[in-house]
Amino acid sequence: MQTTGPFKKIGIISRPRGSNLAVVIPPLLDWLKARKLEVFYDTETAGALPDTSKGLEREDVAAKSELLLVLGGDGTLLAAAKVAAPLGIPLLPINMGSLGFLTSFKADELYPALEETLAGRLPLSERAMLDVELIREGSVIERQTVANEAVVNKGTLARMIDLELIIDHEFVARYRVDGLIVATPTGSTAYSLSAGGPIVHPSVESWIVTPICPHTLSDRPVVIRDSSIIDVHLSVGTESVFLTLDGQTGIPMQESDKVRMTRSAERLKLIQPVKKSYFEILHSKLKWGET
Amino acid sequence: MQTTGPFKKIGIISRPRGSNLAVVIPPLLDWLKARKLEVFYDTETAGALPDTSKGLEREDVAAKSELLLVLGGDGTLLAAAKVAAPLGIPLLPINMGSLGFLTSFKADELYPALEETLAGRLPLSERAMLDVELIREGSVIERQTVANEAVVNKGTLARMIDLELIIDHEFVARYRVDGLIVATPTGSTAYSLSAGGPIVHPSVESWIVTPICPHTLSDRPVVIRDSSIIDVHLSVGTESVFLTLDGQTGIPMQESDKVRMTRSAERLKLIQPVKKSYFEILHSKLKWGET
Amino acid sequence: MQTTGPFKKIGIISRPRGSNLAVVIPPLLDWLKARKLEVFYDTETAGALPDTSKGLEREDVAAKSELLLVLGGDGTLLAAAKVAAPLGIPLLPINMGSLGFLTSFKADELYPALEETLAGRLPLSERAMLDVELIREGSVIERQTVANEAVVNKGTLARMIDLELIIDHEFVARYRVDGLIVATPTGSTAYSLSAGGPIVHPSVESWIVTPICPHTLSDRPVVIRDSSIIDVHLSVGTESVFLTLDGQTGIPMQESDKVRMTRSAERLKLIQPVKKSYFEILHSKLKWGET
Amino acid sequence: MQTTGPFKKIGIISRPRGSNLAVVIPPLLDWLKARKLEVFYDTETAGALPDTSKGLEREDVAAKSELLLVLGGDGTLLAAAKVAAPLGIPLLPINMGSLGFLTSFKADELYPALEETLAGRLPLSERAMLDVELIREGSVIERQTVANEAVVNKGTLARMIDLELIIDHEFVARYRVDGLIVATPTGSTAYSLSAGGPIVHPSVESWIVTPICPHTLSDRPVVIRDSSIIDVHLSVGTESVFLTLDGQTGIPMQESDKVRMTRSAERLKLIQPVKKSYFEILHSKLKWGET
Repeated sequence: MQTTGPFKKIGIISRPRGSNLAVVIPPLLDWLKARKLEVFYDTETAGALPDTSKGLEREDVAAKSELLLVLGGDGTLLAAAKVAAPLGIPLLPINMGSLGFLTSFKADELYPALEETLAGRLPLSERAMLDVELIREGSVIERQTVANEAVVNKGTLARMIDLELIIDHEFVARYRVDGLIVATPTGSTAYSLSAGGPIVHPSVESWIVTPICPHTLSDRPVVIRDSSIIDVHLSVGTESVFLTLDGQTGIPMQESDKVRMTRSAERLKLIQPVKKSYFEILHSKLKWGET
Repeated sequence: MQTTGPFKKIGIISRPRGSNLAVVIPPLLDWLKARKLEVFYDTETAGALPDTSKGLEREDVAAKSELLLVLGGDGTLLAAAKVAAPLGIPLLPINMGSLGFLTSFKADELYPALEETLAGRLPLSERAMLDVELIREGSVIERQTVANEAVVNKGTLARMIDLELIIDHEFVARYRVDGLIVATPTGSTAYSLSAGGPIVHPSVESWIVTPICPHTLSDRPVVIRDSSIIDVHLSVGTESVFLTLDGQTGIPMQESDKVRMTRSAERLKLIQPVKKSYFEILHSKLKWGET
Repeated sequence: MQTTGPFKKIGIISRPRGSNLAVVIPPLLDWLKARKLEVFYDTETAGALPDTSKGLEREDVAAKSELLLVLGGDGTLLAAAKVAAPLGIPLLPINMGSLGFLTSFKADELYPALEETLAGRLPLSERAMLDVELIREGSVIERQTVANEAVVNKGTLARMIDLELIIDHEFVARYRVDGLIVATPTGSTAYSLSAGGPIVHPSVESWIVTPICPHTLSDRPVVIRDSSIIDVHLSVGTESVFLTLDGQTGIPMQESDKVRMTRSAERLKLIQPVKKSYFEILHSKLKWGET
Repeated sequence: MQTTGPFKKIGIISRPRGSNLAVVIPPLLDWLKARKLEVFYDTETAGALPDTSKGLEREDVAAKSELLLVLGGDGTLLAAAKVAAPLGIPLLPINMGSLGFLTSFKADELYPALEETLAGRLPLSERAMLDVELIREGSVIERQTVANEAVVNKGTLARMIDLELIIDHEFVARYRVDGLIVATPTGSTAYSLSAGGPIVHPSVESWIVTPICPHTLSDRPVVIRDSSIIDVHLSVGTESVFLTLDGQTGIPMQESDKVRMTRSAERLKLIQPVKKSYFEILHSKLKWGET
C-alpha cells in the first residue's frame, strides 16, 4: 500500500538523548516551511531550538498533523505510535543512532525520505496492534494499545509467579515463570526474541505467547490466531506482579486481577524504504547470513 | 465445521506393528456390516483377518471410500493422509498405542467415535498442507503434498550443509546447518518442535521455517505467511543432501537442485473428539501445566 | 563420604507453610528425646507445638547442634545452609511437599532416614559454595555465601541492563540482558536451568554463567573453572539493578558497584539417600526418560 | 605452560583446498632450512611445491618431528591432532582462512609465530581428549581418540533413534533423538554449541553430553566429570545408526553395539598466541560483546 498524502501538516516527535538534534532540527524546520508545510512539534523537539519557542504535548502534535516525523530509536517510535495510531496517522521514522527494527531510515536519509513521502512514493506497512485491558473486580481499570508486547512479569524480589493462560475462554496452560509475554508480530523481534520466541513476519495474523524463564522445561512459545481472546489470570497467592506495556509503563497488579488482550481496531502505520525489505533489516540487526 | 456424511462406504487403513489388530478388526468388520455399510481395507488390515482375504492398495481403498478409518499412530495417519487428501475424504484416526498429536481418539473410543461420526455429530478440523516440488535443471522431478513438514537435510556422514532460503523471490538467509525444516502448523508439534521451533495453532495461516543445529547462533525459527512461495537452494559445492517428506520419503538431491514449497489446494480433514481441544492434547503430550 | 557422627545434639529447622508440622513435630521430639538426644529448634518449629515453648533463632540452633534436621522444601534448605555451612554442620533434608532437587528424602522417610543417619550409614554429599561480595567505592559492603546462585538482575520497571563480565581480571563479555546468573553446580538445576543453562554434576569443579533474556542472540551459557575470580561490573548509566542471593535477599546496587565471586571455604554438607542417585532425582524432577 | 623446545625437526601438515599454499610453502621451506632445521611434510604440502618432490604419510611426518606446523582450518588441525597426540608432539596452527576456535594464528602471523615458538616464548594449552571404543559382542572393534567430540547419530533416512546413557555404570537417561554428542571442553564450541550445548572453558575437567533434536522437550545438555565412564547403548530395534568421530569418520553401528568413552592419556598440545586469550577468540568467532 502506498502512502496517501498529500500531507500539508507535519508533526515532529523526537528524543534528544545523545543525539545531535540541535544540528538537525533548525534546518529541517526551514526545509519544511520552504515547502509551505505547516509544522508542529513536541517539547523535546523544541528543546533543540536556539530560541525559547515551546513545543506541544505529543497528543496535541498528533491531533494537528497528517503525518508524524519521528526522530529517534525504536523506543521513541513506540511512544509516537501511542498518539498516532488512535488517529490513523502514518509515521515516518528516522533513526538517529543505530538501525532499529522499526526505524529503518538512517539519519542521512532524512531529506530523501521526506521528499519521497511527500510525493507519495513510499510504501506503507500496516501493523496489527493489541488492545490490553487490566481488569480488577470486574471493572477495566486500565486500557492501552500496544505495538510490540504486553508482559505480565514478577517484581524484582519475587522468586517466580504463577499464571494461567486462557484462550477463547478455554484453559491452555499454567505457567511458573519470571513472566509471560504476549507479542504482536512486530514485537516478535523485540523482547519476545530475547526470551526465545520465534520471528514472525508482520503479515502473519497472529500473536506470540512466550514464557520468560519457565520452570517447566517443556514450555515453549505458542503462536495463536489474532482473532483470539487472550486472558492471563494470576494464580491465588501470587504477589508482586506487574503489567508492562511496550516496555514503557509498569502497572502493579493485585491478586485477583486479570489481563485481557484482543486485536485492536488501531493499526501502526509505518512508512518504509522502497529498497529495504523486512528480511534485509533482520539480516543487518541479527547479523544473519554472514560467513 | 461438522462432518458431512452420511457415509455409506468406509475404508480402513491400519498398521499392525505391535498392535492387537487381530482382535480388533474382525468384530469391527461385523459391526460395520451390521449397519449395512460397505467396507474396504488395505493389505495391512487384511493381514489381521483369520481367513485369506486380501486387501486393496491404500490408493484403491481411498478411491472407493467416503470416510477413512485409520488404526495406528501419527505415522499411519500421515500415510493415510497421502491418499485421502487428494480426494477430499475425511479421516477418523484411532490411536492403537499412546496418544498422538493427530490421532486423538483412543482405542477404547473406537465404537463411540464411529457412532458419532456416522451420525454427523463430530467436528472436522481442516488442516493446511504444503505442496513440495523438487526441481532439477528447470524440470519438476518430484511433487508431493505433506501434512507435517519437508526437510532438506545433510546425509549421514556430511559435516554440515549450506542452504539459501528465498521467500517470494527475495533472498532471506544463508544457513550453515544440519538441515532446514519447513513445517505446517500441524507439523509444528512434530520434528520442528524437537529442533526448537514454536508451537503454532492450526488456525494460523503460516509455515514455520526451523533450522536444525545452526552454525550461526543468531539463527532463529521464522514464521511466515502461508501464501508465500518458499524456495530452498543448495549452495554451490554442497554434497550429500536429502529431501525428506513427512519423515517417510528421502530423496537424494543434486548440487543444482531447488525445492519449491507452496500452499496446497489439498486439505487434511481430521475428525476430532468434541471434548478434547487442541490445547488439551498439547497438555497430555507435553506434560504441560503440571506442578 | 559417610556421615561422621555420633550426633548427640540435633537441631530442627522447618517452614510451616502449608505443611502438617503440628502433626509431625510433637512425636518427632518424643522420638529424639527417647534416644537421649539433645534437641534445639527454631521459632518456626516451636509454632507447631501445642504448648507455648519458644524456639531459638536459626543461628543459635545451628550453634548448639551437631546435625540439622530440615523440614521443608529447597527454599528452607537454602536458608538452613546459610547457618549450617559456616559451622560445617551436615543437613538432613526431609521434604514436606513434592520432591526437591536438594531435599531428597520424602516425609514418610523421616524416621528411617534419622535412624540411618544416627547410625552413620548414609552418604554425605559435599557441595561447593560461592562467596559473593558487593563492592562499593572500594569497600565490601555486603558479603554472603550462596549454595545455588547469585543473580545481578534488572529492577521491575527497567528495560534491560548493561553488564560486563570479567574473569581472572580479563574482560570476557558485555551483556545486554534482564540479568546474569552465576550458579554453582548445585544451582545448575534451579534458576539457571529455567534461563537455559546446562545441568552440571556437583562433582564438576565449576561455575555456570547464564544470561537471562540476552539481547545478543549468540550469547550462551558459559561453564568456567571454580578457581576463577568472577567480577560483574555495571556499565555506566545502568540504573535499577539488584543483587539477588539464593533467591532470598535482594540488594539494590548503585552505578559504580561491582560484584566479586570466588569459591568459598564453606561447603554445603547434604546427607543423601543410599538408593537415590543424582541422576535418579533428575529423572523424577524433569520427567526424563519417560516414553 | 611454556613450549619446551628446542625444536630441531619440524613437520608440516596442510590442506590445500582453496588456499594459496603454492605461494606460502616454498619460502617457508627456505626459511626453515636457513635456520638449519630438518623439515618433513605430508603429500598435501608436497602438492604445493613446484618440483615433483613427494611428501610422507601424515603418521610418518609426525613420527619424525618434534613440532608440527599445521596450515589449514579447524578440520586440518583435528586431523593433525590424530597423529600428533599419541606421540605428545605440540601443534602450531596457522589459519589459512577465517579465524578458527583452534587455529588462532592468522596467515600473516606465520613467521612471527614460528620465531616465538622456536624461541620457546609461546604458551602451550594442553587439552583433554576422549578415548572412544565401539564394542560389538564384547569385543572392541574400533578405538579412536577425539579432540572435539564423538556423536552417535541417526542415518539419513531414519526418523529418530533410541539411546540409553549410562554413566559410571548407572542408568542416566533414555533419549529419543536425532543423535547424542559427547564433547570435550575443546569441542564445546564446535558441533555441541550448534545443538544447544554450553561453552565450557578448557580448564574445566568435564565432558558435555548434548542431545540433538530431543523428542522429550525437557532434555537438556549435561556436564559431567571427566573421570566418568560414559556408555551409550542403542535401544533394541534401533536401526541405521552411526558413530561419528571428530566429524571425520562415520562408522555404521549394529543393534547390539555399545560405545564407551573415557578420558584419554593423550593430550592435544596447542601452541597459543600470547596476546589472544580463550575469551578473545570467543568474541571474534561469536560476535559477542558488540553493541
